[in-house]
Amino acid sequence: MADPLRVTIWNEYRHEKEIPKVAELYPEGIHQTLAELLGAEGDIEVRTATLDEPSHGLTPEVLESTDVMLWWGHCAHDEVDDAIAADVQRRVLEGMGLLVLHSGHYAKPFKRLMGSTCSLKWRENNDKERIWTVMPSHPVAAGVPEHFELVEEMYGEPFGIPEPDETVFISWFSGGEVFRSGASWRRGHGRVFYFRPGHETYPSYHDANVRRVILNAVRWLRPTVRIPDGCPNVEPLE
Amino acid sequence: MADPLRVTIWNEYRHEKEIPKVAELYPEGIHQTLAELLGAEGDIEVRTATLDEPSHGLTPEVLESTDVMLWWGHCAHDEVDDAIAADVQRRVLEGMGLLVLHSGHYAKPFKRLMGSTCSLKWRENNDKERIWTVMPSHPVAAGVPEHFELVEEMYGEPFGIPEPDETVFISWFSGGEVFRSGASWRRGHGRVFYFRPGHETYPSYHDANVRRVILNAVRWLRPTVRIPDGCPNVEPLE
Amino acid sequence: MADPLRVTIWNEYRHEKEIPKVAELYPEGIHQTLAELLGAEGDIEVRTATLDEPSHGLTPEVLESTDVMLWWGHCAHDEVDDAIAADVQRRVLEGMGLLVLHSGHYAKPFKRLMGSTCSLKWRENNDKERIWTVMPSHPVAAGVPEHFELVEEMYGEPFGIPEPDETVFISWFSGGEVFRSGASWRRGHGRVFYFRPGHETYPSYHDANVRRVILNAVRWLRPTVRIPDGCPNVEPLE
Amino acid sequence: MADPLRVTIWNEYRHEKEIPKVAELYPEGIHQTLAELLGAEGDIEVRTATLDEPSHGLTPEVLESTDVMLWWGHCAHDEVDDAIAADVQRRVLEGMGLLVLHSGHYAKPFKRLMGSTCSLKWRENNDKERIWTVMPSHPVAAGVPEHFELVEEMYGEPFGIPEPDETVFISWFSGGEVFRSGASWRRGHGRVFYFRPGHETYPSYHDANVRRVILNAVRWLRPTVRIPDGCPNVEPLE
Repeated sequence: MADPLRVTIWNEYRHEKEIPKVAELYPEGIHQTLAELLGAEGDIEVRTATLDEPSHGLTPEVLESTDVMLWWGHCAHDEVDDAIAADVQRRVLEGMGLLVLHSGHYAKPFKRLMGSTCSLKWRENNDKERIWTVMPSHPVAAGVPEHFELVEEMYGEPFGIPEPDETVFISWFSGGEVFRSGASWRRGHGRVFYFRPGHETYPSYHDANVRRVILNAVRWLRPTVRIPDGCPNVEPLE
Repeated sequence: MADPLRVTIWNEYRHEKEIPKVAELYPEGIHQTLAELLGAEGDIEVRTATLDEPSHGLTPEVLESTDVMLWWGHCAHDEVDDAIAADVQRRVLEGMGLLVLHSGHYAKPFKRLMGSTCSLKWRENNDKERIWTVMPSHPVAAGVPEHFELVEEMYGEPFGIPEPDETVFISWFSGGEVFRSGASWRRGHGRVFYFRPGHETYPSYHDANVRRVILNAVRWLRPTVRIPDGCPNVEPLE
Repeated sequence: MADPLRVTIWNEYRHEKEIPKVAELYPEGIHQTLAELLGAEGDIEVRTATLDEPSHGLTPEVLESTDVMLWWGHCAHDEVDDAIAADVQRRVLEGMGLLVLHSGHYAKPFKRLMGSTCSLKWRENNDKERIWTVMPSHPVAAGVPEHFELVEEMYGEPFGIPEPDETVFISWFSGGEVFRSGASWRRGHGRVFYFRPGHETYPSYHDANVRRVILNAVRWLRPTVRIPDGCPNVEPLE
Repeated sequence: MADPLRVTIWNEYRHEKEIPKVAELYPEGIHQTLAELLGAEGDIEVRTATLDEPSHGLTPEVLESTDVMLWWGHCAHDEVDDAIAADVQRRVLEGMGLLVLHSGHYAKPFKRLMGSTCSLKWRENNDKERIWTVMPSHPVAAGVPEHFELVEEMYGEPFGIPEPDETVFISWFSGGEVFRSGASWRRGHGRVFYFRPGHETYPSYHDANVRRVILNAVRWLRPTVRIPDGCPNVEPLE
């Protein structure tokens, strides 16, 4: 039997405490909604961590024992300590998986790993979003239909990311935009997956297809190795 | 001064002779409309070649002296001789540029170079197509706005291509689909660019933005080398 | 428990019957040596197929029920029937995994899937080959040391392949060359892995590290989907 | 006639002032040796900037008017101000080209743009380095032979970089290692090229082939656009 998968769900956890509509959708926070989803699997050990905890909940012990991290943030990216963002980046480069959700496109760990602006167009206007599965063979797309629909905040191209290793989902928006909504990058010995849906005022994390993608991504991001950084001075082999 | 760029525009040239609406849009054929565009540049030597000429107009002499080839085909892909398709592929691998237009996604040379199905969804229904420039720094996008619109046949994902080296354009369609409309691949010592617009019953090749992309692509596809294939048995260097 | 993995090992199987040195190394053929390796796993159903069998052993029934195919060929690539090579390609595009070994770089299915020359430099001179693991986190590299050595035929760059999706191994040769020895490409809904070692006059398929890579690759190439080709005319969604 | 290309050569400029052997090879600094190379072209406007100047020589005015930057650093990466490293990164994302040389693999701007460790193996032992051109059609390889040799510091794989967009050169070392010595990445609207040679105790920047690559790279890195960052809230188009 495989070892349990140790997942840490990080959430900014501000909107849920301040905006009634968000509190209604995610009464205990987006992290708890996702924790219930993953916890129900049986073989996933789930922890949560939030911005206002000491060390944002990301102590060295937590980082050390995390296989896959999820990241949701929006209005307080700047409050994330640079040293902790650097620690998350370091753990990805050692092998940890990172699933970046929605407005996490601007999170410090994601920007550090991408090296680019991660900027985009946006609009809160109840757009219809139709997510197309353009790489159905990718494990993150397993069981996901060829297309599915949400009502959501719009994110539009150009998206300031490096060309993805794999483009899995592309979104169509009723307002006329397109967006690369699901994409992966290998960084160091770990992998990063970005998945677009999840604006806090919409029930997207209760949607069956969104949940399927998140669950697939978490499993796909399982580390294969753990290799600390080093730059060794070596003897010749010949 | 740079050497002139020697361009051969290949066109199936059947619809224009059979369908009045197409004849009206492209009275001397799509190839002539594109030849006028490129010929007006001054430093481009343009030739055309069509399916029903001997050797489809692609004699060894023509292939030998072509730097960049354009390819438009639709209803008669199967009538293209396999040996000639292989010759076009060989010339790309030696360094020639290839610009594949619209229904050329199913052309023999393109399928040989991609190695995949090149299949897609389609619909002739006067969709509005909005083409988004997702990589504005690419030379093929020079002077092209962030988005522009056409009335066109719809092509939808999933598109059966290898992950592009560069994804330059993504289309939004009013009927609800998305499509990677402009993409490049290096193959051997040459390059391939696919550009989606140009169904024969629409005036797309008279559109200023489409023409800008085609002109940019032709220049960008200029060969940098010509290296014939070889698999040499070599002596050790040490 | 996962379904058994259905593997077909294809071997040209000529050298072993004609060259005493090869017969000594692989008395029942390279395919049997690899079949024993994979068969010992317990959950892999192994079949073999060879050039001189009817349909080269690759009947529609065999292709239909193969999850992952291995391919070794050398002196008789041209004797492989084009229709069967096309069938193997089609199955990869539908989802089948393909592990191409050594001189299989010139095999028809590999060349069809790559779209390029697949040419290289070569020398039979008992070079020392040191294979470096440049992507240790890749599942194909699991348990493989940072570098390991063989005595082998030399293959040198430039290698006429499309830029790999993932470069996992790079070889150093005592005669002074380098070579991308392990690389992957997604093609359609399937994946292709090329692994360099295995000239017939060397015992490479008895080497523990080579065997580890082959076993890893076979498992990594397990299909995730099976999707037949189609190019549907679709109704608008809006 | 094209606008002149405005190049800024950044050099740490410490070793040249402290180590007699380095001073002998590069009496006025590595930056001056490269400035003479580029300046002789006629259409390149060259400036230099060094660590110990105010703002490391990279004032806003200099950054603002730089098309392509070269970067050589080694023992004092940590002394580069984080804000200035961030400014260089920002300018690349806006369109500026960046050529990173040798030990610049650990420079702050490069690490920020890659997002990964950029670590490697190394040895100062007068290795023979043979650089293989694996993508001869790349403009950076124009006029460069299939392989050429240097005596150099060894850099070995694994190299902690994201999979390159293009792998142009791979090195063989007499001590038994291999290394991806020339590689490119698109980041934002700009491009980055890494080129390995140039340890300060060797005359590599006087080598004709190394100089050819640097000159090619500088021209290839010319910006195509300048697009400042933005994350606009937009109105619907439909």
